[in-house]
Amino acid sequence: MALARIARANLRRSGGAFGSYACEKDVFNVGGYTTKCYTASQVDYSDGKYSYVPTVKEQNCMKFSMRGISGTPYHQFASANTERAVEESDSDLENDHPRYAGLEATKPGEKPRVVVLGTGWAACRFLKGLDTRIYDVVCISPRNHMVFTPLLASTCVGTLEFRSVAEPVSRIQNAMTRDPNSYFFLASCTGIDTDKHEVYCEAVKNGQLTRDPYEFKVAYDKLVIAAGAEPLTFGIKGVEENAFFLREVNHAQEIRKKLLLNLMISENPGISEEEKKRLLHCVVIGGGPTGVEFSGELSDFIMRDVRQSYSHVKDYIHVTLIEANEILSSFDVSLRTYATKHLTKSGVRLMRGVVKEVHPKKIVLSDGTEVPYGLLVWSTGVGPSKFVKTLNLPTSPGGRIGVDEWLRVPSVEDVFALGDCAGFLEQTGKPVLPALAQVAEREGKFLVELFNELGKQNGGKAFSAKDIQLGKPFEYNHLGSMASVGRYKALVDLRKSKDAKGLSLAGFVSWMIWRSAYLTRVVSWRNRFYVAVNWATTLVFGRDNSRIG
Amino acid sequence: MALARIARANLRRSGGAFGSYACEKDVFNVGGYTTKCYTASQVDYSDGKYSYVPTVKEQNCMKFSMRGISGTPYHQFASANTERAVEESDSDLENDHPRYAGLEATKPGEKPRVVVLGTGWAACRFLKGLDTRIYDVVCISPRNHMVFTPLLASTCVGTLEFRSVAEPVSRIQNAMTRDPNSYFFLASCTGIDTDKHEVYCEAVKNGQLTRDPYEFKVAYDKLVIAAGAEPLTFGIKGVEENAFFLREVNHAQEIRKKLLLNLMISENPGISEEEKKRLLHCVVIGGGPTGVEFSGELSDFIMRDVRQSYSHVKDYIHVTLIEANEILSSFDVSLRTYATKHLTKSGVRLMRGVVKEVHPKKIVLSDGTEVPYGLLVWSTGVGPSKFVKTLNLPTSPGGRIGVDEWLRVPSVEDVFALGDCAGFLEQTGKPVLPALAQVAEREGKFLVELFNELGKQNGGKAFSAKDIQLGKPFEYNHLGSMASVGRYKALVDLRKSKDAKGLSLAGFVSWMIWRSAYLTRVVSWRNRFYVAVNWATTLVFGRDNSRIG
Repeated sequence: MALARIARANLRRSGGAFGSYACEKDVFNVGGYTTKCYTASQVDYSDGKYSYVPTVKEQNCMKFSMRGISGTPYHQFASANTERAVEESDSDLENDHPRYAGLEATKPGEKPRVVVLGTGWAACRFLKGLDTRIYDVVCISPRNHMVFTPLLASTCVGTLEFRSVAEPVSRIQNAMTRDPNSYFFLASCTGIDTDKHEVYCEAVKNGQLTRDPYEFKVAYDKLVIAAGAEPLTFGIKGVEENAFFLREVNHAQEIRKKLLLNLMISENPGISEEEKKRLLHCVVIGGGPTGVEFSGELSDFIMRDVRQSYSHVKDYIHVTLIEANEILSSFDVSLRTYATKHLTKSGVRLMRGVVKEVHPKKIVLSDGTEVPYGLLVWSTGVGPSKFVKTLNLPTSPGGRIGVDEWLRVPSVEDVFALGDCAGFLEQTGKPVLPALAQVAEREGKFLVELFNELGKQNGGKAFSAKDIQLGKPFEYNHLGSMASVGRYKALVDLRKSKDAKGLSLAGFVSWMIWRSAYLTRVVSWRNRFYVAVNWATTLVFGRDNSRIG
Repeated sequence: MALARIARANLRRSGGAFGSYACEKDVFNVGGYTTKCYTASQVDYSDGKYSYVPTVKEQNCMKFSMRGISGTPYHQFASANTERAVEESDSDLENDHPRYAGLEATKPGEKPRVVVLGTGWAACRFLKGLDTRIYDVVCISPRNHMVFTPLLASTCVGTLEFRSVAEPVSRIQNAMTRDPNSYFFLASCTGIDTDKHEVYCEAVKNGQLTRDPYEFKVAYDKLVIAAGAEPLTFGIKGVEENAFFLREVNHAQEIRKKLLLNLMISENPGISEEEKKRLLHCVVIGGGPTGVEFSGELSDFIMRDVRQSYSHVKDYIHVTLIEANEILSSFDVSLRTYATKHLTKSGVRLMRGVVKEVHPKKIVLSDGTEVPYGLLVWSTGVGPSKFVKTLNLPTSPGGRIGVDEWLRVPSVEDVFALGDCAGFLEQTGKPVLPALAQVAEREGKFLVELFNELGKQNGGKAFSAKDIQLGKPFEYNHLGSMASVGRYKALVDLRKSKDAKGLSLAGFVSWMIWRSAYLTRVVSWRNRFYVAVNWATTLVFGRDNSRIG
């Protein structure tokens, strides 16, 4: 029981707490909206009953001339002439009034259709709980699996296999594969027409379809936006071109390939000492849980595996963690001290610094210091994605999609947002929650229960839930945080918030808790089994170092 | 015991028996050398003692003007000005007489250095057995792992994980990671100077080093060429651009990604019926063991997984196997009949045909038939690689590197060739052996025993083995062939050759033998364990269908 609690407490995203708390200041009001023009929420909480109709009034004081229409204007789609995918040669000019092919609005008598954008923690928790006897569901995402982000750092060095941390969405909600009107579409959403209740999509490209991009639309009764966030680069030159992020399985694959390539290249004869040092200098930017865990895993890998498998270059490889402030700033002071000590002991160099520029082979810090590197991993947290920025929807402080206490987007009907892409509107009086898996999962659970309740009261269809009383608003209780610092050591911080008092642990017992907690939280039994097997084999046989692809 | 025998009997390459027997006719004498100008072997077999000095005389009747020098002339390297990798900016013009950096020839008193080109079956069996107390070893290959090719087809559909069929070369021969003068270099060999006893290499590129390609040389005492072969395309237009091969782990990864992408794209709304059928038409060219096993795995995948996970499009997916002659032509007639029946029953369409052209979305056969496809896998066997064609060494019938009965390359000293890249010279009177893992492994074992023997008699150094008597020449005994045809069914053919009589089995028992045999043959315990775990989880949980990257 205790384990499950901690586990839930620690399901955080890559680029976790550090990013969300520390960084969103920097993107405050990105997108040009000011939140102060929203009036305060006018909900009457006194009788415990709340209506479905969005309560935030006058939110359009900035004159949303395209209100309800996404950043990509509709006429662009209308002219895209993409009714269907057709062979290059054997088609003539379709028709003169092309329209979007796709799923039309549901008819009376049909089940209401919920459209979910995204396959992250929030979306998948929502999908998992949805009552598919009431709703048809369409999930749209460029990724057909959920990533168990807390364990992603371990896959880069071969402690875990990539597949063990990826959960196919079809296993999470199998109605999408089984029910005739439920679907998963491998596509990106490019725009939303909230008046027409339609989303516009572009299929994932791969040189596959002649009319590229292949576009379609899906009409919704209810829309759930859980499209996630993007790594923050603070506009620093060269980050996107040269650094690796650590948010997706293929990021981890790329990091692994680069690391092994550098190890092998540096063994080649004739490489200068200086070049060897550069190639094998791994630099991590950002001292949040992801950055710390990745550094810890790397130093483990170096201590155990590189010494054995790359003994010719073992003295050249080093890890440097660069952070502008404190590492693990959301953790208890004693835990931070422990982490600093343990990382230093494992050979990780901790460095204070602010990155000014990134070049292909070196970083320049704001004080002019140049840091040559062979591998650069960037994990300074996340901010609103380009997609979210293009949506003309109200925003929260920090530029996320603004929601009320029931995760509804005010000013438009039947649209909900949650996870990293959403934040409470200023007038709700609640803080924007950190970009943690823990938050996203809890929001998904809250919203799906709300949806199932609405559905039972016949509020599933578009525009049909106006008069339905909602239950209690969403309340977030932080259950604590965990981070591994490598080699059988971890931190567990059970305080409710940064300034509260509470239990905190560091060391081997924490590490056992960390492993057990994750093991019980990995979504499917298949992956639980695989994670356990991976850990056991790494212990017995060491890490795998084949470089595939 | 029986199992081990069968296992050894069946370690075949992707593009196996079919390719080697059926296809090498077509590349006979590619490269412009004729083999008839070699005189017959003049070895005296009578007393069972054979000398180390190559016995094939007058092999240079075609006037090898560049004898002993590889196809890429040495002066090209000399002018390449690539002494070492240097930073773009902070280097001036090195020196006026650039030379190759690298490993110089071993000095008297130092251990002799064996250079092995390749990390396939032959190379890895050789590496595994090498007595590293006698020799230093340098292995050069663009791939740092061996691929367990017979199980590659299973990884495409998720029955096995990719990592389970890849064995890091550092685990096969750990002297390369441990000994100060033994190395593995992730590089391609670009040329050989047999007079100077040097090989020239190009490090694997990845935008990593400024002076691209980064080149170096390695001097050898003995050279073992086991660089493998390349898929045969018979010069058919469009094959390389549009078809997938199935020889490497990343090929399998690409096939898997394409298959899952096509499945998901075809679910998108608005795709025409015709386009759906095309996208989900999987075409396999070549009815050898690889083609048949891949078709079998695909039909399994369709029957079990697609029906569950992609029920919207389950009626559109089909597999067609196109073969110009008989499928599994090297197998017993009764087994061929069984395979044909079983594949047809599983929904694989068998088609006779010769491919004329390959377009991005359709194949044109020689009779004009057009076959639209969404996924095209090409497995019509292998032929000599571009690298082998550039070497000015004697050739066997079919254009491989010609070797004598001790796998020596005549006309040059201290050079050996084995596996798919080598074949017996015509004057040895022996047939060129098929491109099977079984053959390559046996050759590796033979050669490494010869090397260890030479080393013990102080014949390890360059030019030092002339007077040493060799043991018995290499004899190949075919132990039989196996192929799975999908869904708990396999074929086991224990005949010694195509026309001999002997035991053959088909069905569930064969399938059990097939699985057990492979399981015992997977190189490391780690991978044995993983293959067993993969099989068990696939049985319990079904195949994984997450599309990563």
